[in-house]
Amino acid sequence: MNAPVTNLDGADARRATKHATQISDQAAAQAPWAEEFPNSSRGFVEQDGLRVPFRAVAVTGEAPVRLYDTTGPLDHDVRDGLPRLRQPWIDARRGDATPTQLFYARQGIITPEMRFVAIRENVEPELVRAEIAAGRAILPANINHPESEPMIIGRRFLVKINANIGNSVVSSSIADEVEKLRWATRWGADTVMDLSTGRDIHQTREWIIRNSPVPIGTVPIYQCLEKVQGKAENLTLDLFLETLREQAEQGVDYFTIHAGVRLRYIPLTAKRVTGIVSRGGSIMAKWCLHHHKENFLYTGFEQICELLKKYDVSFSLGDGLRPGCNADANDAAQFGELETLGELTKIAWKHDCQVMIEGPGHVPMHLIKENMDRQLEVCHEAPFYTLGPLVTDIAPGYDHITSAIGAAMIGWYGTAMLCYVTPKEHLGLPDRDDVKAGVIAYKIAAHAADLAKGHPGARERDDALSRARFTFRWQDQFNLSLDPPTARSMHDETLPADAAKTAHFCSMCGPHFCSMSITDDVRKLAAAQGLSDEAAVAAGMEAKAAEFKAAGGELYRAT
Amino acid sequence: MNAPVTNLDGADARRATKHATQISDQAAAQAPWAEEFPNSSRGFVEQDGLRVPFRAVAVTGEAPVRLYDTTGPLDHDVRDGLPRLRQPWIDARRGDATPTQLFYARQGIITPEMRFVAIRENVEPELVRAEIAAGRAILPANINHPESEPMIIGRRFLVKINANIGNSVVSSSIADEVEKLRWATRWGADTVMDLSTGRDIHQTREWIIRNSPVPIGTVPIYQCLEKVQGKAENLTLDLFLETLREQAEQGVDYFTIHAGVRLRYIPLTAKRVTGIVSRGGSIMAKWCLHHHKENFLYTGFEQICELLKKYDVSFSLGDGLRPGCNADANDAAQFGELETLGELTKIAWKHDCQVMIEGPGHVPMHLIKENMDRQLEVCHEAPFYTLGPLVTDIAPGYDHITSAIGAAMIGWYGTAMLCYVTPKEHLGLPDRDDVKAGVIAYKIAAHAADLAKGHPGARERDDALSRARFTFRWQDQFNLSLDPPTARSMHDETLPADAAKTAHFCSMCGPHFCSMSITDDVRKLAAAQGLSDEAAVAAGMEAKAAEFKAAGGELYRAT
Repeated sequence: MNAPVTNLDGADARRATKHATQISDQAAAQAPWAEEFPNSSRGFVEQDGLRVPFRAVAVTGEAPVRLYDTTGPLDHDVRDGLPRLRQPWIDARRGDATPTQLFYARQGIITPEMRFVAIRENVEPELVRAEIAAGRAILPANINHPESEPMIIGRRFLVKINANIGNSVVSSSIADEVEKLRWATRWGADTVMDLSTGRDIHQTREWIIRNSPVPIGTVPIYQCLEKVQGKAENLTLDLFLETLREQAEQGVDYFTIHAGVRLRYIPLTAKRVTGIVSRGGSIMAKWCLHHHKENFLYTGFEQICELLKKYDVSFSLGDGLRPGCNADANDAAQFGELETLGELTKIAWKHDCQVMIEGPGHVPMHLIKENMDRQLEVCHEAPFYTLGPLVTDIAPGYDHITSAIGAAMIGWYGTAMLCYVTPKEHLGLPDRDDVKAGVIAYKIAAHAADLAKGHPGARERDDALSRARFTFRWQDQFNLSLDPPTARSMHDETLPADAAKTAHFCSMCGPHFCSMSITDDVRKLAAAQGLSDEAAVAAGMEAKAAEFKAAGGELYRAT
Repeated sequence: MNAPVTNLDGADARRATKHATQISDQAAAQAPWAEEFPNSSRGFVEQDGLRVPFRAVAVTGEAPVRLYDTTGPLDHDVRDGLPRLRQPWIDARRGDATPTQLFYARQGIITPEMRFVAIRENVEPELVRAEIAAGRAILPANINHPESEPMIIGRRFLVKINANIGNSVVSSSIADEVEKLRWATRWGADTVMDLSTGRDIHQTREWIIRNSPVPIGTVPIYQCLEKVQGKAENLTLDLFLETLREQAEQGVDYFTIHAGVRLRYIPLTAKRVTGIVSRGGSIMAKWCLHHHKENFLYTGFEQICELLKKYDVSFSLGDGLRPGCNADANDAAQFGELETLGELTKIAWKHDCQVMIEGPGHVPMHLIKENMDRQLEVCHEAPFYTLGPLVTDIAPGYDHITSAIGAAMIGWYGTAMLCYVTPKEHLGLPDRDDVKAGVIAYKIAAHAADLAKGHPGARERDDALSRARFTFRWQDQFNLSLDPPTARSMHDETLPADAAKTAHFCSMCGPHFCSMSITDDVRKLAAAQGLSDEAAVAAGMEAKAAEFKAAGGELYRAT
């Protein structure tokens, strides 16, 4: 990636939206980006007419570390919305009947979106095309969401994370939700799902999409249920299609659709400890039982495909029967539905629609791998998108942790995107701090998975941070971390002085016990004497010991 | 376990200690236990003259859930120390030359400590004896720490966690450390290591041991280094043995001893990214290089065994060459040292000393299992005791999470005890909140491992909590969680009213979207009609749909 790099100018043309007066100024109340990421700069790889954003962290005495960045354009007013990056590419394809990335990939066409992704992921464009063509990856990119910066979800690429936002009847405002969107992408959310179920559902979504540099997902059945005043039995396929059209027109990039909740599976949940815990799943179960009919999302699936392909909205086939506790993991209902999702995947692919598959949920560690293996098999390697899984049920208040454990593991096994869980899971709606805690926990899980998969270059950031740690470059250590302000403030608590940030020790051990300091001298001595193999040791250690003593024998640095 | 149960009377005889005036009252400033664990009570299984503590959580409409409890006696004054539970058993063995649990186990003797552990773990006493006799488990129980409640560390038993406390020259007081001890055991620490390196090291330890219901571990080389004013080259085996004796006399239950840092391994660390990161390891490396001699802990190991067996202090063979970053994981230095630890294990066993083996550190997920497999092989199945491991290096401030991921996995693979990591790791000394955050993260990891191993009864708490969640018994859900006050306060943030604690919905979905509520009715319907297999479904769904409609067809509960 030797393309020229320019700094962000932040002065893209702005455009007015029709909602300009309704959003409050409080949504712009975040701390300046540069304060939260000291010594970082945003730049672009400029190549073949593309400008692909990244973040570069300056490091003392070393090359900057370049990071994948989901922040999107800085310094824009939320009332203006983001610049329409993809508009020219979309316009150039205007008139195509099936403007999906899958359609183009299958034709052998590498779209600008695919080239953008290839630069972003540091891979060949042909790999991007081939993985999309095979259905092993998706590039969610509604033609009506030109503000999005293209990204890819597939197991040959970096593991992605999703953050859920959205109001409910009891809480939250539009401004809060836009604020959460920007906050989530600042800390690293690769996609955001708007799960609003409360007031102003259409308008909230409009604000979110116009301000989102990442793909937006929704669960359209929630809005459908609003339209029938909460009476699930009054839902119809026509109403559903009308709602999909409304949301697709706005620019939603992927839809969770619970088409796998077939009538026959519902009784299989009866003896579960926690039955059906998916909202969409329970709505469809109610409809099926009431009418004693097959799920209309299943019977009407081809019509849904016809609609989605016109906008290139990707399917996120919902796991309406996912387990809600460890006791229910990997049961007949869950795996039955998974098989149906595999069947639907093939139908969607027939229509050139992009597809990913949603997965659980609550699963003890020893049952996680079976989820991944079965999904790859019965869903024909379509990308897997899991919620956690949570590896125990006993820690409400800490489910970002119980689920990050399962998420890291299933990411390693091959899951392409991890849906975050916040500390408030099971307890309440996440606030700003909860969103950040969830995103950071999932950046940890996704990155741990990238490391375990041996993703090229994934360890560069770890190694740069570890070198900084070893040589007491505290500021570099903070700046390279996932959350620089938190790392710095924790260091401040015991050693607040600025001088401590250059000290060759820390409060854990104090100046006389520092193993890092000792080992640095061990290393210098050994390296100078070629002590890197055992033969050398056996031959020469006696001499070296004398030399070591002659040199003063003091391995502690003077501090 | 049908033994009679009594409530805690809290009125054990108290005894004075010689340090009565020196500890401040602030150490007793914790919230009352009953406030933090509502609807919990402490009780005892009384059986064969033993009184084995547990915690019982009362649950609405169900049997209480009985939990392993590490809190120790409540309501005692830290200036008095804890009651000397084990004193009569120790006195009865007075005069034995080798009063170690391993010695007795090998003789076929089931000690009161073993019986106590068997009741606590809900297993047969013979299993406890056999696992100790085989070296696969240890029961750390210095004859001079009669205050401890016996516990066992081995992979056939519940996975345990250790919390580190201890002051350093730059921070903390004795009162703070005793407070941290009580705080850590309240939240579930199974052992505590006192890693003090600062002032008053002997006295701090005395206070900690006299007030500890759990085994206490130390790293004696730290105190040795204080005695030689920080000059590692002045360390001697005699000084070390003298320090071991001092600490063994006080009642330390296990010693970390870095006897595996052999001269030949030191050069293998020269090309590492972070060299030697263990304090004890670096101290011994410095000594070895200075003298160009083999580590005196290795050459003097049999003398150390002779001393430890007199007190039944267990070995925790230290991994002085553990990796300090992902780049250094599983390298020649680390695995070389591990082989030496295996060799030393056999020597310790020859002396009837109990042994566990310390492990890493920083290890990416795909390299974790190799650590466990090799340890079992080369250390002859002695219990493994690991620090994390941390699965990525990029998250200072969140290393309780990066390490809980690795800890859960290695616990599943067979590690017997997990050494906690707090959010302050790499940044500063943990305070009270950090200790709690570390303990909770590790209770999650250990419990997740117990579930994955299929430990008998481990899922009872998960299932009880999940049933409470499903039926909207909010208080039961909080009370059964690892941290009831946090779970409750998070629920309060969006739905503060007491009425909301009995509501059949929560702020996530609001009253009209509740999947739990829907599925409850699905279940009732299905169960009533015998819909639990597909044949029944095919035969009878038409009739049931009619019935469902006739019954009102409203699956949402009235709220």
